[in-house]
Amino acid sequence: MGIVLGPNQYGKAETRVVRVYRDGPVHVIRDLNVSSTLRGDFAAAHVDGDQANVLPTDTQKNTSYAFASEPGIAEIEDYALGLARHFVADIGPVQTARVQVEEYQWDRIGAPDAGHPHAFVRSGQEVRTTAVTVQGDQAWVVSGLTGLVVLKSAGSEFAGFLRDEYTTLQDASDRILATSLTAAWRYAEPAADWAGAYTEVRETLLERFANVHSRALQQSLWEMGKAVLEVRRDVAEIRLSAPNRHHFLVDLAPFGLANPGEVFHAADRPYGLIQCTVQRDDAGPAGPAWDSPAAFC
Amino acid sequence: MGIVLGPNQYGKAETRVVRVYRDGPVHVIRDLNVSSTLRGDFAAAHVDGDQANVLPTDTQKNTSYAFASEPGIAEIEDYALGLARHFVADIGPVQTARVQVEEYQWDRIGAPDAGHPHAFVRSGQEVRTTAVTVQGDQAWVVSGLTGLVVLKSAGSEFAGFLRDEYTTLQDASDRILATSLTAAWRYAEPAADWAGAYTEVRETLLERFANVHSRALQQSLWEMGKAVLEVRRDVAEIRLSAPNRHHFLVDLAPFGLANPGEVFHAADRPYGLIQCTVQRDDAGPAGPAWDSPAAFC
Amino acid sequence: MGIVLGPNQYGKAETRVVRVYRDGPVHVIRDLNVSSTLRGDFAAAHVDGDQANVLPTDTQKNTSYAFASEPGIAEIEDYALGLARHFVADIGPVQTARVQVEEYQWDRIGAPDAGHPHAFVRSGQEVRTTAVTVQGDQAWVVSGLTGLVVLKSAGSEFAGFLRDEYTTLQDASDRILATSLTAAWRYAEPAADWAGAYTEVRETLLERFANVHSRALQQSLWEMGKAVLEVRRDVAEIRLSAPNRHHFLVDLAPFGLANPGEVFHAADRPYGLIQCTVQRDDAGPAGPAWDSPAAFC
Amino acid sequence: MGIVLGPNQYGKAETRVVRVYRDGPVHVIRDLNVSSTLRGDFAAAHVDGDQANVLPTDTQKNTSYAFASEPGIAEIEDYALGLARHFVADIGPVQTARVQVEEYQWDRIGAPDAGHPHAFVRSGQEVRTTAVTVQGDQAWVVSGLTGLVVLKSAGSEFAGFLRDEYTTLQDASDRILATSLTAAWRYAEPAADWAGAYTEVRETLLERFANVHSRALQQSLWEMGKAVLEVRRDVAEIRLSAPNRHHFLVDLAPFGLANPGEVFHAADRPYGLIQCTVQRDDAGPAGPAWDSPAAFC
Repeated sequence: MGIVLGPNQYGKAETRVVRVYRDGPVHVIRDLNVSSTLRGDFAAAHVDGDQANVLPTDTQKNTSYAFASEPGIAEIEDYALGLARHFVADIGPVQTARVQVEEYQWDRIGAPDAGHPHAFVRSGQEVRTTAVTVQGDQAWVVSGLTGLVVLKSAGSEFAGFLRDEYTTLQDASDRILATSLTAAWRYAEPAADWAGAYTEVRETLLERFANVHSRALQQSLWEMGKAVLEVRRDVAEIRLSAPNRHHFLVDLAPFGLANPGEVFHAADRPYGLIQCTVQRDDAGPAGPAWDSPAAFC
Repeated sequence: MGIVLGPNQYGKAETRVVRVYRDGPVHVIRDLNVSSTLRGDFAAAHVDGDQANVLPTDTQKNTSYAFASEPGIAEIEDYALGLARHFVADIGPVQTARVQVEEYQWDRIGAPDAGHPHAFVRSGQEVRTTAVTVQGDQAWVVSGLTGLVVLKSAGSEFAGFLRDEYTTLQDASDRILATSLTAAWRYAEPAADWAGAYTEVRETLLERFANVHSRALQQSLWEMGKAVLEVRRDVAEIRLSAPNRHHFLVDLAPFGLANPGEVFHAADRPYGLIQCTVQRDDAGPAGPAWDSPAAFC
Repeated sequence: MGIVLGPNQYGKAETRVVRVYRDGPVHVIRDLNVSSTLRGDFAAAHVDGDQANVLPTDTQKNTSYAFASEPGIAEIEDYALGLARHFVADIGPVQTARVQVEEYQWDRIGAPDAGHPHAFVRSGQEVRTTAVTVQGDQAWVVSGLTGLVVLKSAGSEFAGFLRDEYTTLQDASDRILATSLTAAWRYAEPAADWAGAYTEVRETLLERFANVHSRALQQSLWEMGKAVLEVRRDVAEIRLSAPNRHHFLVDLAPFGLANPGEVFHAADRPYGLIQCTVQRDDAGPAGPAWDSPAAFC
Repeated sequence: MGIVLGPNQYGKAETRVVRVYRDGPVHVIRDLNVSSTLRGDFAAAHVDGDQANVLPTDTQKNTSYAFASEPGIAEIEDYALGLARHFVADIGPVQTARVQVEEYQWDRIGAPDAGHPHAFVRSGQEVRTTAVTVQGDQAWVVSGLTGLVVLKSAGSEFAGFLRDEYTTLQDASDRILATSLTAAWRYAEPAADWAGAYTEVRETLLERFANVHSRALQQSLWEMGKAVLEVRRDVAEIRLSAPNRHHFLVDLAPFGLANPGEVFHAADRPYGLIQCTVQRDDAGPAGPAWDSPAAFC
């Protein structure tokens, strides 16, 4: 019974790349957080301490900056595909590369239709994401968003659930439903317009969250995911992860006050955590199994 | 030489109060984080362990919820004034009360002019704040915002500064200027329209940040503060605190690439921290000195 | 081409359970953060909004508290196994349950050998963890730690690495090596003494980190993992995840000062991220693939 | 009625300075987070954009690193005094300087009495702090700690408090008392042994927290502060800030279980916040009023 090296990977995490396009008077900024992870022939680095096959993570950082200059950052999916393909094609020991990008959104200061040419304010809380995996000639693009905080103050119930000896929760016919949504959708093929696809998916998720009468967060997520697959033929599957941010009705009776669904305590922890995948029945393989850095252990 | 009790205060921090107004089909939500702090005749609680004068922080929490029901939350300044006046007027040992409120902003899901009646998405990153202090018959209202993240990619320089033996920084005639602004302005008198005043101050700060050609963050802050005092006659002073979020130009020359102000590394730490007050020369007293909880030690 | 529900799971995350054993004058505390996740027959909850099969996450929270009373918390592995087996055995629709526990460590105030009977101070930064998965009659126990921050100021080099056109890093024959270690090891069988096993693994990891002359973080991790498998026959595999917390030598030459490995800038981001698994060649199956909540999307 | 520049200050925040002493085989590390703030003749920088008087924050960072080399870091108080005196003495426009330092503690890996010469593990959660203010020839040293997390599972009550119409809390004769302590003490004169003083104050605080039968957190803080002044003649005053980290007894009666002070829910928010100063009646002036960066707005 021997001891062997199992799955391993390494990379540079959270390189903060900001690119300014300033060819004319109206500037454009792309504000990214870039992480690259490589898999391949790295056993000697572990077992023998031999680094001959190891491209330093410092070099990966440099490459992230260089690619932000040339070819630049059209959309984060293009940029991540370029980086990942470079690592697989040009660095001999690398068999698989994953590039993850978070993009922070900025609005122009001023009127929506007459914004400032070079002054910006961070918009929204959500972050646009992509995770691109390249292995040999194949590539998988999983784009998404995280931190989309939504709430509805009507149109949500939770009733008729399974009860056991530890159940004290009562049926709720009218409650606040709130979450900070994370979504990730895998493209079956490259989108013709990555930014347009992002906007359409985001708007579809919001529209369904708002308008589905929710009998549970599970149902809302299913309807949201299904709608995305219906409007985007190029999406093979979508995963949704939604903490149920509980809002508890405060008992004001001791103070002689009624509380007909008006005053709530917003709790931090614990929270429900509801997660599901909605996919086409011919979705095809999702690419190599890949632990996120957070999940590696 | 005796040992005595010095300044002391206590309260309930970070009560998360959510109020839904649902009188008609179109709901309104107010999403607050409320902290109250009391000063007064509390020596016995410390020195003798006698709690007879101590209103429990749990009661302060309850009061925050009850006041969210009645009289409700018109604007956070009204709500905080009501709470602070209650503690001073109705709780015998309390001589001074401070109520601090953070408000999280929500947009309606959907079109700006046709938003959903009861579904919302968190907007922006900045948080609207107020800190109300009541002592006897007097009240001071200091409202503000925190986390307003702004960046300009042109119109900023930093040159002609003092040099000593530890100076290696070069003059910069064109740099990125970025900050996460915190501002707090003291009202000389109650605003006729707290929400309108907030919006006007915020827009004035953004406009000046965008349009002042900045020879240093100090100058931008001064111009921003001065403009607020010019447009708001009811503001006696404004304090501005701005971390200088450095964006360093990446040296791409080793890779054969020019970098004419295009690719930057956004650094986390250290950061410059520029802080100033702009005030009227007859601003009047700012109220009792009051350590924020964060600054008490 | 239809649209179908894919993998899904739900549960209660981050229930903060504190148990005090106070049978005698000397108290013992167990301070936990508990998350449970269930998989099974929950399609109707999504597709039809029918909650008849759904055990509320509120009930899962209640169960976490009840089990902290009876049978109590001997070790977190026992507690998690009890909870997970209950969900699978007693809740019809549940096919698989995962219970993750973080435990925060406390020392007694006072002398190590004569500590206080009921007063405690939080010790260390690291958190002891376990993730228990139960499916039918089978159970997998993966215990670990996170946030073990270590540094060595000698005995670390990084040289002879692969160079390409984007490489600017120089060979380092003497550098600071620092990381915040996360480790997770899967038991091949239940440990006779979970706490003793934890202590032995932790000490083995620390000893190897300290005493292996490191030619790269990869090599340190391999040696650390290998040593754990050598001393613990009951461990089938161990996964290690280590951010390389870079310490950059500061250039003091402009100030007329030498810097022979003495003054460093500790950087936050970006960081290298090195991850590997060390396993027995007959390690056996690792249990059902299971996305962590963080990795679900 | 004119608009004028009021109080202002600027500096470099959170420079992460690590110093390794490696003169012999046994290394010593000092791991600091350094912030400097300057006040003086900086009106022109604001009003006219003239930076001639402004020492760049980048230079302040450089100086922090240079002083870590020469004269080095004996104790953080010495280091901060040296930096602050330099800014006031050598930089013309500077009238007052404040240097704040956080120090992270490391233990040697291995046996307490036979630790490793150059391998370390981060110890504890608390951070040692100092805030040194220099104005002209005067200096004030306020040292402290933050993040000292303590809990007692007996010897704490809260009863006989003031009740009003919003009070629902019941008297508690036996409860968990837990806090994350921040303390800051001002030296009347330089300590002969800064590190020894720190250790003695920390141990005194812990001993009193543990052994005072607490009728309220206020009483515990008073007794803790008083004891520090009794054992340290060189301390003029001490400020204590203590969030009351509530542990709520869980109602297990619905599950047929008693809960005699055994199973608790540890709540995050809201929390009580108790703050007091204990001082000598001839404590003397505390130095110039100085807003912490956090409290500036």
